[in-house]
Amino acid sequence: MSTAPSAGMPQWDHPLWQSLLPLGRSEPSGGYRRYSFTDADSACRDWFGKAARQRNLRVDCDRDGNLWAWWDAPSGPATGAIVAGSHLDSVPDGGAFDGPLGVVSAFAAIDLMRERGVRPVRPVGVVAFVEEEGARFGVACLGSRLLTGVIAPERARELADADGVTLAEAMAGAGLDPERIGADPGLRERVAAFVELHIEQGSALDGLGAAVGVGESIWPHGRWRIDFSGRADHAGTTRLADRRDPMLPFAAAVLAAREAAAEVGALATMSKVVAVPGGANGICSAVQAWLDARAPDEERLHRLVGLIMESARAAGDQHQVTVTSTCESLTPVTEFDLDLRDRVVTALAGAGVNAPVLPTGAGHDAGVLAGVLPAAMLFVRNPSGVSHSPAEYAEPADCAAGVTALATVLAELACR
Amino acid sequence: MSTAPSAGMPQWDHPLWQSLLPLGRSEPSGGYRRYSFTDADSACRDWFGKAARQRNLRVDCDRDGNLWAWWDAPSGPATGAIVAGSHLDSVPDGGAFDGPLGVVSAFAAIDLMRERGVRPVRPVGVVAFVEEEGARFGVACLGSRLLTGVIAPERARELADADGVTLAEAMAGAGLDPERIGADPGLRERVAAFVELHIEQGSALDGLGAAVGVGESIWPHGRWRIDFSGRADHAGTTRLADRRDPMLPFAAAVLAAREAAAEVGALATMSKVVAVPGGANGICSAVQAWLDARAPDEERLHRLVGLIMESARAAGDQHQVTVTSTCESLTPVTEFDLDLRDRVVTALAGAGVNAPVLPTGAGHDAGVLAGVLPAAMLFVRNPSGVSHSPAEYAEPADCAAGVTALATVLAELACR
Repeated sequence: MSTAPSAGMPQWDHPLWQSLLPLGRSEPSGGYRRYSFTDADSACRDWFGKAARQRNLRVDCDRDGNLWAWWDAPSGPATGAIVAGSHLDSVPDGGAFDGPLGVVSAFAAIDLMRERGVRPVRPVGVVAFVEEEGARFGVACLGSRLLTGVIAPERARELADADGVTLAEAMAGAGLDPERIGADPGLRERVAAFVELHIEQGSALDGLGAAVGVGESIWPHGRWRIDFSGRADHAGTTRLADRRDPMLPFAAAVLAAREAAAEVGALATMSKVVAVPGGANGICSAVQAWLDARAPDEERLHRLVGLIMESARAAGDQHQVTVTSTCESLTPVTEFDLDLRDRVVTALAGAGVNAPVLPTGAGHDAGVLAGVLPAAMLFVRNPSGVSHSPAEYAEPADCAAGVTALATVLAELACR
Repeated sequence: MSTAPSAGMPQWDHPLWQSLLPLGRSEPSGGYRRYSFTDADSACRDWFGKAARQRNLRVDCDRDGNLWAWWDAPSGPATGAIVAGSHLDSVPDGGAFDGPLGVVSAFAAIDLMRERGVRPVRPVGVVAFVEEEGARFGVACLGSRLLTGVIAPERARELADADGVTLAEAMAGAGLDPERIGADPGLRERVAAFVELHIEQGSALDGLGAAVGVGESIWPHGRWRIDFSGRADHAGTTRLADRRDPMLPFAAAVLAAREAAAEVGALATMSKVVAVPGGANGICSAVQAWLDARAPDEERLHRLVGLIMESARAAGDQHQVTVTSTCESLTPVTEFDLDLRDRVVTALAGAGVNAPVLPTGAGHDAGVLAGVLPAAMLFVRNPSGVSHSPAEYAEPADCAAGVTALATVLAELACR
């Protein structure tokens, strides 16, 4: 796997893509900081509204803050829509493609369908879900989880960012009503199928020589907060034997996570850590850390987390540090709807597109929606496989191939 | 060693101590966040001025922002002063005693000398040095280092806090002139001796059954910043073999630091860490960490740091992570002036005080001043040995014993 820094690569020249690129871009990394309900997010939401209005699409913001743009069918009911889209928020210093490629491609696919004279008998929609990355409030796919009732509104309202601002406060600050958030009972009637196009977050398609792929399943995955509680002391005077330093079992847990992931055939990452109080010349009183764990099946996921916590607790006992864990989110394996997947693969094959079927370790809004309605995913080739990084990249020709594939699939689904 | 939470313990009832206790106190930890040139610091500086004026002491702020209060001798020259004091700033969530005990005790010792009718033939001063902990700008004993010329003003002005605010900007914001900072060539003439009273940051005095001790030497010590530079990637899709995760060699370094310290007979602590960008579902691009290392002699200190860096680099090589280190501060062993120490011990013995002589691993302004003028330290018993923590504690009777000892020492030094 080689790095492909986006800085030196030609960017997709689609006007919608070009107009989105500057928003929320952070220098000097060149990555994006599009956190929900911030100024950068507001700029992205304005961009969405403008893109919809330029296309005479009706814009709608649902009770959870997710944005929808509707191409209503000239005849036929207002229900049973076919919706494409993804999200606009980013991880800290994320890439340009993860999320936005799916939203831009959905608008571009509608343009292409209209050029081709496609006449849908069902509404066609574009959606941008809020807080997919969980970068601000800690719960991934928050917008789709709320909409489908996977997370309770009471719990969601109390989620707080690093500064202690709650979701309720942030939504109110953005002009939304946090009291209205929650599941939409009409969702299944209104939406017949959801197709999320997304940049691949690995390099399997590149190995297969394919520009576009179809999602098979999403690995079960979750996030655990691990608290290491020791005792603050002076770094220059406290004997080693007297220390209760929480950084030591944290370090043991980081190394154990890598070892356990290799043993189980899974993925484990510890990348978020807060040392309390965090001065250089004092021993910490506590360390808070987050474990991201993913595995091909749930048995292996639980074995993985069990092994890591066992090592963390053993190291904690050795240093008189209390170690506790809290599961912040847990998503079971997601198998996408088989009938929908077959229709997608058949439509692409009919248009001469070879689209291999792939599993993924990444969570997506399509995975959450798959719990209540037929959902499918299209992946666009990522030559380096790098994601959640400014170096994330897809070739312009592959972005265009993604739009063509998405338009083909939407036309197939919306005309019957 | 047992914890002694200050919350449940009686606090010294000296009015000056009581008036200082609420300033910069942070809830819910009950610890202090008195960072240089902040509102909390400004409140402490106002407190110093008020304490001095209540005692008819002349207040003076030197070019580096250190505060002085002078009891001028009625006859005799204005030079060759005997000065006591310490600092008012704190580590994050520090205790009430580290620093402030020395300043309050210096004022209280002057009160006691006056009650006893002591008539100094030299000026007697109280000093509060700025940024002793280095909690805001990263360099410990910054005020005394500037005053004695140990750090260049150009370098100091550019030191920046976590928000990128430079020392120059922070000083200007506090009404001080950063262009004037630097060594005071008249210091040695003006000050004949400095005595810093400080809470012990260990429990040796408790083991010896003594309320007060005298400083022998300060271990050589330093602070190193270690940068681990890897590559940001998606936590859910990047194969273990493709990762360049900087958290792994950081964890290896934390464990190596403890092991090397035990091997060398020294102290090593890694308590400050910043993961970049630090999202839970992305692999970090970089980890910045700080190593605090202290040893009985310089040979062992350098061996300690060498062992730790060797392990960190080996782990970096294993994970394709670049590891570099920068020495941010390094203080050689400090032996306090032998003549002054003998006079202090003799004066205390003459007053019936058994004050054992102790080495310490902690750096102090007295250690910096010892490079240019005679300096001594008095320690006050800390039953639990806990420091740099809200649980730091000294018994009221021991605080009072410290004042009596300091007054005895100052009277001995200032009357000849």
